[in-house]
Amino acid sequence: MDKRIRVVVSGAGGRMGKEVVKLVLQDEELELAAAVDRSSMGIDAGSLAGLPEAGVTVTDDLDAALSAGADVLVDFTVPQSAFNNTTAAIRHGVRPVIGTTGFTPEQIAELDKQCREQGIGGLIAPNFSIGAILLMKFAAQAAKYFPHLEIIEYHGDQKLDAPSGTSIKTAEMIAEVREELRQGNPNEEELLEGARGGYYNGFRIHSVRLPGVFAQEEVVFGGFGQSLKIRHDSYERAGYMPGVKLGIQKVMGYTGLVYGFEHFIE
Amino acid sequence: MDKRIRVVVSGAGGRMGKEVVKLVLQDEELELAAAVDRSSMGIDAGSLAGLPEAGVTVTDDLDAALSAGADVLVDFTVPQSAFNNTTAAIRHGVRPVIGTTGFTPEQIAELDKQCREQGIGGLIAPNFSIGAILLMKFAAQAAKYFPHLEIIEYHGDQKLDAPSGTSIKTAEMIAEVREELRQGNPNEEELLEGARGGYYNGFRIHSVRLPGVFAQEEVVFGGFGQSLKIRHDSYERAGYMPGVKLGIQKVMGYTGLVYGFEHFIE
Amino acid sequence: MDKRIRVVVSGAGGRMGKEVVKLVLQDEELELAAAVDRSSMGIDAGSLAGLPEAGVTVTDDLDAALSAGADVLVDFTVPQSAFNNTTAAIRHGVRPVIGTTGFTPEQIAELDKQCREQGIGGLIAPNFSIGAILLMKFAAQAAKYFPHLEIIEYHGDQKLDAPSGTSIKTAEMIAEVREELRQGNPNEEELLEGARGGYYNGFRIHSVRLPGVFAQEEVVFGGFGQSLKIRHDSYERAGYMPGVKLGIQKVMGYTGLVYGFEHFIE
Amino acid sequence: MDKRIRVVVSGAGGRMGKEVVKLVLQDEELELAAAVDRSSMGIDAGSLAGLPEAGVTVTDDLDAALSAGADVLVDFTVPQSAFNNTTAAIRHGVRPVIGTTGFTPEQIAELDKQCREQGIGGLIAPNFSIGAILLMKFAAQAAKYFPHLEIIEYHGDQKLDAPSGTSIKTAEMIAEVREELRQGNPNEEELLEGARGGYYNGFRIHSVRLPGVFAQEEVVFGGFGQSLKIRHDSYERAGYMPGVKLGIQKVMGYTGLVYGFEHFIE
Repeated sequence: MDKRIRVVVSGAGGRMGKEVVKLVLQDEELELAAAVDRSSMGIDAGSLAGLPEAGVTVTDDLDAALSAGADVLVDFTVPQSAFNNTTAAIRHGVRPVIGTTGFTPEQIAELDKQCREQGIGGLIAPNFSIGAILLMKFAAQAAKYFPHLEIIEYHGDQKLDAPSGTSIKTAEMIAEVREELRQGNPNEEELLEGARGGYYNGFRIHSVRLPGVFAQEEVVFGGFGQSLKIRHDSYERAGYMPGVKLGIQKVMGYTGLVYGFEHFIE
Repeated sequence: MDKRIRVVVSGAGGRMGKEVVKLVLQDEELELAAAVDRSSMGIDAGSLAGLPEAGVTVTDDLDAALSAGADVLVDFTVPQSAFNNTTAAIRHGVRPVIGTTGFTPEQIAELDKQCREQGIGGLIAPNFSIGAILLMKFAAQAAKYFPHLEIIEYHGDQKLDAPSGTSIKTAEMIAEVREELRQGNPNEEELLEGARGGYYNGFRIHSVRLPGVFAQEEVVFGGFGQSLKIRHDSYERAGYMPGVKLGIQKVMGYTGLVYGFEHFIE
Repeated sequence: MDKRIRVVVSGAGGRMGKEVVKLVLQDEELELAAAVDRSSMGIDAGSLAGLPEAGVTVTDDLDAALSAGADVLVDFTVPQSAFNNTTAAIRHGVRPVIGTTGFTPEQIAELDKQCREQGIGGLIAPNFSIGAILLMKFAAQAAKYFPHLEIIEYHGDQKLDAPSGTSIKTAEMIAEVREELRQGNPNEEELLEGARGGYYNGFRIHSVRLPGVFAQEEVVFGGFGQSLKIRHDSYERAGYMPGVKLGIQKVMGYTGLVYGFEHFIE
Repeated sequence: MDKRIRVVVSGAGGRMGKEVVKLVLQDEELELAAAVDRSSMGIDAGSLAGLPEAGVTVTDDLDAALSAGADVLVDFTVPQSAFNNTTAAIRHGVRPVIGTTGFTPEQIAELDKQCREQGIGGLIAPNFSIGAILLMKFAAQAAKYFPHLEIIEYHGDQKLDAPSGTSIKTAEMIAEVREELRQGNPNEEELLEGARGGYYNGFRIHSVRLPGVFAQEEVVFGGFGQSLKIRHDSYERAGYMPGVKLGIQKVMGYTGLVYGFEHFIE
């Protein structure tokens, strides 16, 4: 008896989608039930992911893909289609694991209701990086004891926004538990404007932009005679796949919709 | 009404003791009730700690010091005297905060019983560094998700033992929760013997010894496409003082003896 | 008039060869004259490199490729074929840039002679990473002032040998200029065998092996009250391409064979 | 025959002066000829430095101290007195090693002339940290090959100015050799003002301020698929002493005044 979890990948031709196809094809506990993508229709899913032929041809028919006995749908598409894809999956009793952002609270509530009615689990997660989520949790825990801290995040030099979304999310999680405190000398002077970084709730965030870097974040805490540093490096998209796999496994075991990957991390 | 906690420091002339005296004299929430040390008798406690005169003369009479209405005894002496100092404190209703190691389980049980009889709290802690304890806790949490890890610790070049006690304690805490796994290529070959470090339960510990370094430890986790690093730097003995202060505050609020500072860190 | 340097890539289907093809196709100062590879014959060179079609079909005929007016041959093949490929290039007046190792001193002397007879430049380099070479040079310079140092290198967990070739080369360059000195406490004791790392000429090398890591090296120097650290991270093969390009440009400007990329770095 | 270099320390009671006294008393190649300080007059120089009595009493008479057969004067006082102290030393044939800043170019030229007339060497150096100077030199060398870089410097949280003087000096040395280049995406947007740091000649400087930190600086270079990092940590004032000693030794061997410690580092 095959106990592998049967997975449908939608958005299979996108940058994240290809990584998911690769994950599913290479992981012995997973099986590729179908790969869905409009622009890559007709191509073998293995070739699409840079692997040997897999015998699964990319289709554009999500409904058919969901009807063929799948357990889980993994969707990294765009906000416009993600909600419909999710409801379609739930309707077929296929557990959704969704990496797309942009759901409204009402949509999340509605999807949770649908999951419960079908008696299946579901997951929507803006960030699947286990390491990044651990960093956030540890940083928030440490901030209770070390309220003096700064965040430094590194991304590629073509990134448009600073600070990064992940570093802002980290700052929010820290600010929720950290005692109110404005760091630094009240009379400090910037000889170069901006040298002290971006101000957030009493502490600072610094954004470094360099070619060759994918995504790195560090939170540095300073105390009397000591410092503590927590650092996460993402080298490539593949780094999100262990999180995607954990999501696939987790949704098999509960009922209702979970929002945010951090709920799977104790 | 003065709400400061009144502290007796024993071993006041030792390297840690001097730091404790400094802490107590400089912290507005603490008051130096007495400083006890045989070899520094007669010296002003402020001068002893490199501060202005404090008006408290170092004494060698611990019993007298404990009789004068103190709240807490902080003791960084030697194993031989620590047990007696602790029982003396409890007898006077003074809460012991003890940084000396070498207590037997029977002694700890006995001191717990005495604390409960007196209705006071007490603490024995081999390590007062909040940062080092956070590193250990975080490393153990992360090891559940990232079972591939190595520990690198840095100390001064005259240190005798490798790996350090703290890194072994970290390794033990990790091993308790980490899945069984022998890391590395089973056929790997050391061209220089020892290059791969010390083997502990499937992972490796590396000890770096360099002049100028006080104490640093890092745990590096590697996963698919990402890595996570937790690092703690101790620059000097003073780095343990925030932990000592937290201990002083905590013992005011419970009954019985706590062994290990990690119990105060959520 | 086109001033682009015309490049033949041999071993175009290998892991490094594909990166070189990509480099040549994407760099405006370079032009792909031909791509040579036995096992990828008939494929478009662009497709081979994961780029749009380039209009250059991979061939297995190196001689023909070298006859078509090329300026430079880049060869990342195997030691067995590299010497012949190099002499063939020189015979056609095409400057060789060779990333293959295993040439004997006699072969290098012979190739130098041939280059001079043809009045062209050539380069053989075991390591094209500018960053790695800078690290080595800086580490050797610093060791004159900071003779206490340790090397820590990180590679993927399936690597067979420890320490890495690059870290041994670094250690050799340091040992040449560093004062004789056996670091550490003469009485130090390893509680775990190997904790203090591999011994090399008075200092230590530590090899960390973790999944997700491509290649990282750091040299840490410790002195009285300070430390200095030089660290290089390679994230992927593409990181060697700026060095390959610099090599291509440099061989256009001198006569004779250069062995070792460090000669281009002041 | 005693070949130790005889040193007069002026400003012996200051924070740096005490470290110099300690250095001279503890180093076998140096001898304390005299210690000069107005506010510490009459105290034993050893006690002043936290060492056993040295048998040298602190005086306030610099001229007398310089007349007693000294080889070198080390002066860490204030700009107001440093010039006069230096001319006094030269007049007595005592080589000046000056850590005070604020000399004008005219003063430096004048002191150079005086040194040459006396046939002795002299040194004025704003920064005696060998490690910091190596970092600057390496960073400037690397910037020729890696023009994309950012500087991150860390100091105690009570420091008034940002960026630090050392980081600005580093930036200047880099800018002298780096190709003109404005890093980052031209359309990048700061969601928090200042997040991208202080702008200097096309690159960025970030100033982190945390308690417990003495002085740290890192320069991070990013290239295609790789990054290079050079980092210097100062833990305490004592870290400047090996530089002071090297200065003392060097001035014994040349004639004229050297400005800047970097001239002693190849």
